[in-house]
Amino acid sequence: MIVFLNGRFLPESDAVISVFDRGFLYGDGLFETLRVVNGKPFRWREHIRRLQNGAEFLRIRSPFAGESLRGFADELVRLNQMPDSLLRITLSRGPGVRGYSPSGADTPTVVMSLHPAPPVQTEPPGWHLVTSSFRLPANEPLAQFKTCNKLPQILARSQADTAGVQEALLLNTDGFIVEASSSNLFWLEDGCVWTPPPAVGVLPGVTRSVIMEICAASSIPIQQIAIPPEKLPLSEGVFLSLSSAGVVEALTLDGTGLARSPLVKTLFNRYWDLVRHECR
Amino acid sequence: MIVFLNGRFLPESDAVISVFDRGFLYGDGLFETLRVVNGKPFRWREHIRRLQNGAEFLRIRSPFAGESLRGFADELVRLNQMPDSLLRITLSRGPGVRGYSPSGADTPTVVMSLHPAPPVQTEPPGWHLVTSSFRLPANEPLAQFKTCNKLPQILARSQADTAGVQEALLLNTDGFIVEASSSNLFWLEDGCVWTPPPAVGVLPGVTRSVIMEICAASSIPIQQIAIPPEKLPLSEGVFLSLSSAGVVEALTLDGTGLARSPLVKTLFNRYWDLVRHECR
Repeated sequence: MIVFLNGRFLPESDAVISVFDRGFLYGDGLFETLRVVNGKPFRWREHIRRLQNGAEFLRIRSPFAGESLRGFADELVRLNQMPDSLLRITLSRGPGVRGYSPSGADTPTVVMSLHPAPPVQTEPPGWHLVTSSFRLPANEPLAQFKTCNKLPQILARSQADTAGVQEALLLNTDGFIVEASSSNLFWLEDGCVWTPPPAVGVLPGVTRSVIMEICAASSIPIQQIAIPPEKLPLSEGVFLSLSSAGVVEALTLDGTGLARSPLVKTLFNRYWDLVRHECR
Repeated sequence: MIVFLNGRFLPESDAVISVFDRGFLYGDGLFETLRVVNGKPFRWREHIRRLQNGAEFLRIRSPFAGESLRGFADELVRLNQMPDSLLRITLSRGPGVRGYSPSGADTPTVVMSLHPAPPVQTEPPGWHLVTSSFRLPANEPLAQFKTCNKLPQILARSQADTAGVQEALLLNTDGFIVEASSSNLFWLEDGCVWTPPPAVGVLPGVTRSVIMEICAASSIPIQQIAIPPEKLPLSEGVFLSLSSAGVVEALTLDGTGLARSPLVKTLFNRYWDLVRHECR
């Protein structure tokens, strides 16, 4: 496996960083995960925009513009011969002196790596969910960026592992549903698609916005609303959005069966039609 | 500079970790910072206990017991000839596959490094503070551990840098004072020392507990209470506790002068007397 690190393509074993990289010391960085289909990263521009917005917020100056990064990403896919994969981009503040002040740490670290992708299926995968006991902070400005501070998500996902299920729902400190550990949540009710609003602390996933786009283009009404977890089992269907699999149907929540709707399969199909079209 | 990494002593330039270390990918780790005086790390046992409690919570199994780690720490101080310094210990979950699940990541990374310490002064240093606009989550179980998820602290400290002051106060999502970015907070009122309780989301610093110990031994009443930031300027004196400097007097908050009390110097002196005694 070849890894991109700060402008160089290296064998995985040589892709190393200083123990004083602030990404390692404090999680002082950002990342993106993109689905690569037919050698092309789906929705590159949207992912890079979110990365750049986060970098601006954290005042990390990426040494590479989006365009040159794209050239490197294409080369990485070619070198690894992985046209159907997941691309992770990490941008950390790079090495710095001890202490929280980012002052003087001005050589950021950029890593790109490819990972096996689950094969695209013909039906939406079906997952079981648990509700995590860990909460995300409400009204957290950092929530809108994909930062490298992911312990609440790791702990939630670990609870899913322990329960023998695929994903865990996270509530915020006010008790409203936010998202799952690495996917956004949607549910169906009264002919409408619903999803939690950014205000509850949602990380606005690129796949989430694609689902909203598809709904708009298909005249399926979509609305954002904050709900407590008790409401979810009363809906007519629940699904998750994530870059690796697109649309995943939620089958159970904490052991309780969820209603299933044919609309989930429709959205799954439209999502992958769009991916194949844009990555043709 | 020699760095300890997974059982080896290496020159700083060779102290490198994989870009797939989960500490770098997600901040999936813990750390401690100890003051070394006369070649001895002050309150080693308390720091290691907190590290071990955090590791248990995150289910990271440290490859080294506290005692063997202490042997390595002593050797590190000797090799670098830095008997008066700061020791940072980092424990991350180590390399893993992409994704939040910690499953299968079972070779943790352990790093120890020494850093210059501010010289011990004869008077408590005086710092200026600002109130950060970033909030810490209330009732966060992770708050009690020194994790490698430190973006709120980095952003707060960055606001202090911008304001040209030394530290930033952080409130929680309920509006109560929690602590400063890398120090605990105390204030004086009615002949009592006050500090926020763990319930507001305090990271219970080792130096904080030493201050409480000193108060108890000196018959100075100490109480824990949650207060909004408006109350702080009405107190009779404000100070911070942190391993590097012990006790620091707060001179101003957001540009407003704070009252000063001779008790701050008394606590500063007793703190350093204790350090010198235990590290003799």
